[in-house]
Amino acid sequence: MAILPIDSGRYGTPEMLGAFGAGRKVELQLLVEAEVARAQGALGIIPKTAARQIASAARSGRVTPASVARIERRTDHDTAALVEALGAQCPPGARPWVHFGLTSNDLVDTSTSMQMRDALDIIAPKTARLALALAGSAEKYARLPAVGRTHGQHASVISFGLKFANWAAEMAHHLERIGQARERVLVCKTLGVVGTGSLMGARAVDVQAEVARRLGLRPAGAATQVVARERHAEYVFALALLGSTLDKMATEVRNLQRTEIGEVAEAFKKGQMGSSAVPVKRNPTKSERVSSLARLLRSCVQVSLENVPLWHERDLTNSANERFTLPTASILADDMVGSMASVVSNLSVDEARVRANLDATGGQIFAEFVLEAMVRKGVARSSAYRDVQRVAFEARASGARFLDALLQDGAVSGVLGPAELRRVFDPGRHLGASARIISAAARSARRAAART
Amino acid sequence: MAILPIDSGRYGTPEMLGAFGAGRKVELQLLVEAEVARAQGALGIIPKTAARQIASAARSGRVTPASVARIERRTDHDTAALVEALGAQCPPGARPWVHFGLTSNDLVDTSTSMQMRDALDIIAPKTARLALALAGSAEKYARLPAVGRTHGQHASVISFGLKFANWAAEMAHHLERIGQARERVLVCKTLGVVGTGSLMGARAVDVQAEVARRLGLRPAGAATQVVARERHAEYVFALALLGSTLDKMATEVRNLQRTEIGEVAEAFKKGQMGSSAVPVKRNPTKSERVSSLARLLRSCVQVSLENVPLWHERDLTNSANERFTLPTASILADDMVGSMASVVSNLSVDEARVRANLDATGGQIFAEFVLEAMVRKGVARSSAYRDVQRVAFEARASGARFLDALLQDGAVSGVLGPAELRRVFDPGRHLGASARIISAAARSARRAAART
Amino acid sequence: MAILPIDSGRYGTPEMLGAFGAGRKVELQLLVEAEVARAQGALGIIPKTAARQIASAARSGRVTPASVARIERRTDHDTAALVEALGAQCPPGARPWVHFGLTSNDLVDTSTSMQMRDALDIIAPKTARLALALAGSAEKYARLPAVGRTHGQHASVISFGLKFANWAAEMAHHLERIGQARERVLVCKTLGVVGTGSLMGARAVDVQAEVARRLGLRPAGAATQVVARERHAEYVFALALLGSTLDKMATEVRNLQRTEIGEVAEAFKKGQMGSSAVPVKRNPTKSERVSSLARLLRSCVQVSLENVPLWHERDLTNSANERFTLPTASILADDMVGSMASVVSNLSVDEARVRANLDATGGQIFAEFVLEAMVRKGVARSSAYRDVQRVAFEARASGARFLDALLQDGAVSGVLGPAELRRVFDPGRHLGASARIISAAARSARRAAART
Amino acid sequence: MAILPIDSGRYGTPEMLGAFGAGRKVELQLLVEAEVARAQGALGIIPKTAARQIASAARSGRVTPASVARIERRTDHDTAALVEALGAQCPPGARPWVHFGLTSNDLVDTSTSMQMRDALDIIAPKTARLALALAGSAEKYARLPAVGRTHGQHASVISFGLKFANWAAEMAHHLERIGQARERVLVCKTLGVVGTGSLMGARAVDVQAEVARRLGLRPAGAATQVVARERHAEYVFALALLGSTLDKMATEVRNLQRTEIGEVAEAFKKGQMGSSAVPVKRNPTKSERVSSLARLLRSCVQVSLENVPLWHERDLTNSANERFTLPTASILADDMVGSMASVVSNLSVDEARVRANLDATGGQIFAEFVLEAMVRKGVARSSAYRDVQRVAFEARASGARFLDALLQDGAVSGVLGPAELRRVFDPGRHLGASARIISAAARSARRAAART
Repeated sequence: MAILPIDSGRYGTPEMLGAFGAGRKVELQLLVEAEVARAQGALGIIPKTAARQIASAARSGRVTPASVARIERRTDHDTAALVEALGAQCPPGARPWVHFGLTSNDLVDTSTSMQMRDALDIIAPKTARLALALAGSAEKYARLPAVGRTHGQHASVISFGLKFANWAAEMAHHLERIGQARERVLVCKTLGVVGTGSLMGARAVDVQAEVARRLGLRPAGAATQVVARERHAEYVFALALLGSTLDKMATEVRNLQRTEIGEVAEAFKKGQMGSSAVPVKRNPTKSERVSSLARLLRSCVQVSLENVPLWHERDLTNSANERFTLPTASILADDMVGSMASVVSNLSVDEARVRANLDATGGQIFAEFVLEAMVRKGVARSSAYRDVQRVAFEARASGARFLDALLQDGAVSGVLGPAELRRVFDPGRHLGASARIISAAARSARRAAART
Repeated sequence: MAILPIDSGRYGTPEMLGAFGAGRKVELQLLVEAEVARAQGALGIIPKTAARQIASAARSGRVTPASVARIERRTDHDTAALVEALGAQCPPGARPWVHFGLTSNDLVDTSTSMQMRDALDIIAPKTARLALALAGSAEKYARLPAVGRTHGQHASVISFGLKFANWAAEMAHHLERIGQARERVLVCKTLGVVGTGSLMGARAVDVQAEVARRLGLRPAGAATQVVARERHAEYVFALALLGSTLDKMATEVRNLQRTEIGEVAEAFKKGQMGSSAVPVKRNPTKSERVSSLARLLRSCVQVSLENVPLWHERDLTNSANERFTLPTASILADDMVGSMASVVSNLSVDEARVRANLDATGGQIFAEFVLEAMVRKGVARSSAYRDVQRVAFEARASGARFLDALLQDGAVSGVLGPAELRRVFDPGRHLGASARIISAAARSARRAAART
Repeated sequence: MAILPIDSGRYGTPEMLGAFGAGRKVELQLLVEAEVARAQGALGIIPKTAARQIASAARSGRVTPASVARIERRTDHDTAALVEALGAQCPPGARPWVHFGLTSNDLVDTSTSMQMRDALDIIAPKTARLALALAGSAEKYARLPAVGRTHGQHASVISFGLKFANWAAEMAHHLERIGQARERVLVCKTLGVVGTGSLMGARAVDVQAEVARRLGLRPAGAATQVVARERHAEYVFALALLGSTLDKMATEVRNLQRTEIGEVAEAFKKGQMGSSAVPVKRNPTKSERVSSLARLLRSCVQVSLENVPLWHERDLTNSANERFTLPTASILADDMVGSMASVVSNLSVDEARVRANLDATGGQIFAEFVLEAMVRKGVARSSAYRDVQRVAFEARASGARFLDALLQDGAVSGVLGPAELRRVFDPGRHLGASARIISAAARSARRAAART
Repeated sequence: MAILPIDSGRYGTPEMLGAFGAGRKVELQLLVEAEVARAQGALGIIPKTAARQIASAARSGRVTPASVARIERRTDHDTAALVEALGAQCPPGARPWVHFGLTSNDLVDTSTSMQMRDALDIIAPKTARLALALAGSAEKYARLPAVGRTHGQHASVISFGLKFANWAAEMAHHLERIGQARERVLVCKTLGVVGTGSLMGARAVDVQAEVARRLGLRPAGAATQVVARERHAEYVFALALLGSTLDKMATEVRNLQRTEIGEVAEAFKKGQMGSSAVPVKRNPTKSERVSSLARLLRSCVQVSLENVPLWHERDLTNSANERFTLPTASILADDMVGSMASVVSNLSVDEARVRANLDATGGQIFAEFVLEAMVRKGVARSSAYRDVQRVAFEARASGARFLDALLQDGAVSGVLGPAELRRVFDPGRHLGASARIISAAARSARRAAART
């Protein structure tokens, strides 16, 4: 049974686990060998026949993860084992041209790019779907007045949909960032041991460009033995930043689902046991998990940044930790996007409770608007503030509802009539520009999703 | 005397320190108040006269950092103090309309955006100049053969210019990233206490758009009380990633300047004292400082990511630490770019030493090319490898130069004649595609610089 | 006006700011010079007269921060400037023996140790006072039943005092850790340029031991040019871990002060304005600030860990960032301990609200205990669980109070009589071992405080 | 095939992998159930017979990881599955008393403590052995003069053994720290759902104390649903700090093994292929791997610190990431200690090269000592410095050896005779207190190892 919760099957979707399985790496690296041979053959760098034979062997299915692993156990070097296994499947005349002009890391870095590409091809559409779900929820709850909280305190009235709109807008940013990062991050490098392509001469650049084109990557441009690690840092950061927004959403769900607030709840299977202690207890465990994993995801950024300053034409200090961080960041980000998409899509919103919570302060949440109404009637702001505050504190002390206290206060009721005051206490009148903001956010989310 | 080395004057350029000085914050926040009043006046949200009076007071120069600080000492709230100071400079009739519909944080976040804009306006051109200097050095040393090192070991021959080309290409990426980040990060937010713009109604969105336009920012779109902190995290990351590449360059200078390598040296003032211990000692202190500060810069990323998941419509937990991280990241990144630009521009390259180091292994660095030459002559790779390795180890044991040992070895000299072998030992023949790679990198750097 | 909020006076207590002021560094380094000279004189390494003259000049007050700064502006090296300034105050015959056998970093590292010692001398007693305050609150509220929440949900009954007891116990750990760290961290190093004490010969070790003794530090034992940075990492971690517990306390205050929970509130000055929007609003801003600064404090750990692997007998990459992290970590930890001590000491606890919240689920928080009572009466657990859950869900659906529903349910009331059931709903009966746990925690806190 | 390199078998020793295997967790949690039942029986909290039956079932071997996993697939909760599986193995009369008064997390936290204990029981002795090996190497090379390097530059003469002595001293610190951390970190918690032990009443504390005693742990004292996460943060930090020292050692090996320095080399198997490019190339790959993994290990600290501020009586946000960080930190720290122990024990030290490198500056490394010798003869330091520097620069310019240049310089040779000068150029005379420092460090390492 596996130790870490990715290999034990606890976290990770099948599609993403497939993108990082050991078999996949071998498969991708064989593809690189095949395309390099083909390009070298076409450019006359190696014999055309050898090129064809190598490409054919690489695609034959005869070089398997198991056959590579067998050699690795002897040689203690995974990529070299693949090259040897490939050579063994080629006719003798082609063997000298297998891996010609390449270095192990050409396979490692290029196949890693393909894995990051596959990962983004999985994550981006899910993020887009999440953006669409958020846009939908934003619009659905656009007219639902709710408590806006700052510092954990009731502060003013918002549209409940605004919460989703903010998240939708952030998802649009993440999609944009991921799209831009792809152009820099997903590169092909086949320039050999120190990045000069020396054995291939000046045409090494052409080989790399052609292989990149065929693999759907960008050529690396300049490189050392390795592709510069600023690229991988950008990849990991893009996922960690996405993860941090998911953490924000998860934290909001956890807070709104508190027993004392109860505005939302994660979906709960019919008949599911909440807790042996309190049968009606429902824990926001999916959201809690997202918040937990977001911390791990964030921590990968630091490692990736420390990997940037390698020595000279490379040292090996990026290698071991990337075996952890790149799969982990990809697998967790995907898992987390999926989790939050499920949380959002199935979120139970208790509209009655949302409305009821507006009343938790006995109406004092409307004090700001009483003040404004008095100012508009010509009362000096400072004088109005003193009156409103005085009534508020008295009402709080006596347990009176704020509206009643205002109606009975001469200073206030002399300025604002009962109907005017009651209008001020209608939360639906204080949504301000929420509707327009929500529409714009939904639009931006849909635009970004459509481009993905 | 100040405690931290930014306020003590140790780090930071005057222009960047100016962008973050306390006076600057007051200046920028007054600008926000002026533009909001003007936009609200134009849209009929507040009286036109009041709008004109507020804008005029805000630009009068009569609200000074000192006057704000005086009020802050009493009220213990910096932004509220500014609003009060501004009100005091307005005619009584305009006072109720000062800061109308805004919340303190509208000033904080929008002025912070302006500071980040100013910071990028300082950093990006410097980065562009550094990119150009690197492009120039790459081309200057394109034909200089040098040792390529992997794992700290001599590995093969590179063009010395390739080192600079790699850095130039990275600078092009950084410029591109900074340009893209600007679009998301530099935003204006004037939507009031919980992001609905409630007191201004639906036109709050128009006010925000107009203020953004006038301030050279983008409107925030959706917001809570604050602008989402994913934006600030992206800003800090862009600088930290730039800092990590600078760290890479600095680390390379530190390594190449080692007594035993001596290929480069940071500029040294005529008559400057190296060390009291070893008079000729020259320490790469600028580069060491860059490596040191890069760590601090990286650590700001973590803080910024932790700030993303604020509670509800905001909590205050981003506030105190941003007072450190945003100025620090900006000031250090600028200082570091300037330092490395100076290091690169004044770098003393000892070309003779660069060439001499190629010989440090007695010629064994060319073994790879001997092998290839034999293979091209038709020798089986495995057999050629055995011969080359055998001669290499014997030469090492006996202290012989590798070329001499090969010339005297029957197995090798039977395949490669003396002239052929000598040609293999000409490092200039092994630069591969370096020239093309360098040209392309230089071009990409110049293109990115031109766009800045 | 300063840029960073330490030098601007926003954060930091006067005593701790004093420990890190620039003048203090000069003062401490002069003390090191004086003690080294004295020890060298006593051991016959330098002439006794010279030793006396140097010690006297160092303590004369004639070498001032200003005089050092003047020289530093010329020489660009702060420690060398101090040595020069000291030499200038010595008679010519003593000058060759100033700083004899030392290197600049001997002054830097040893004075840094003294600053860390001073910082811990400030922080530890404050932490001890906080521990005592927490012990007091734990005991004060030991008998107050309160809601215990897990996953943000009401879970069971706790003693309200248990919250404070947990924090008190943690403070005891922090005090213990700080005490243990002192022994490793606060060291004196006077072994010269590469840690051999070469110019002083074998007696260099005796000089160092004597200087350490006089300065109240431990001798460094082995060193390179610098004291190993694992020591500084331990120091920073100890503060960051303390800061994380403070963050936990602050987060609890922020959560318990939520409008919907209202069990505690940070002290609020009479007449203080809560918010212009909601007059009765009270924000837990001190706690929010602690949570914010805790993030910055944590980020210093990473920097400190990265500083550990210096090259050879030292490189300079720890230097620049320590100028930030060591004062910042010390100053913020102190500020945060003080803040939370003030929050705890002045915390307003609304006992009525604490009790009332126990009823938020209509009594369902007692379901666990109903179940146990039935089991004790011999009902099979699974059968009892089904009944309790059924009644709980029905009560929730109908809005009935849980106790009433149970009383009216045949299956339950057939087992537990009304008196028995009512007893189960008495929260004071479910505090379990809280009293003993609280006593033990208070005791451990008082013991740790007494040892500080 | 596994994805992450722990489950794929790439990193991790068999003993440590065993300590974190899934089967082990089940085994340990059953042990907790057994001891709790036994203690509860002894104290009369549950029937004695039931206690005996539960303990017996728990130790019967009939509850297997597979049987637990089967239930978990249905219930989606790993610990609850174990409890159910255990109940199924008990006679019906004992079942109500299985897990009595406990919460799932009592099993999780207590078994985690046992895993951390096992991990430290593996790591500490290895660290002790490494400390001993370092002490041995320090003494072995105590008399070997070597270049001391600061800023990457030759700075002065050291004893080569001093490098090992510094590391040995650090290992003594790590052992001490680990020993102290054990007392705080390895705790047993059996206080139930919110840390009051409510169902067991006041005797819950006695149960916990007894279970702790039997399991070789400390009782948790105060707790919430969980043990405070400051404990786990201390554990992870202790390992990460150890890892950072290992990183320092690894970095030194990597630097000293550089082609241009060549003072040490990692062991190299006879006949092992260095590199296909340069047959004699030897890469310090073990050390590079240690440096790489040290970054990952450090990143776990941040996650652990973020886990400290859980909400109320616990939230779940520590849970998912600890499934990664605790095994990963333990397994990597152990792997790294083992790797560096192997590197140190088998390190090839090229003493001739160590001595030869002292001459790399043509003798200028002795300039400091020439200066001192002149001062001791009565020359004013400033005048001596000018002369030494002048000769040094001239020698460098002309390529002369420094000693020859000094011998021929009137100003110097007028003060120091040829024999005196030659003595100054004997590196063995400049080891200062190295021997004493090394002895003391070796002693402290041996003392710490003996205590482990």
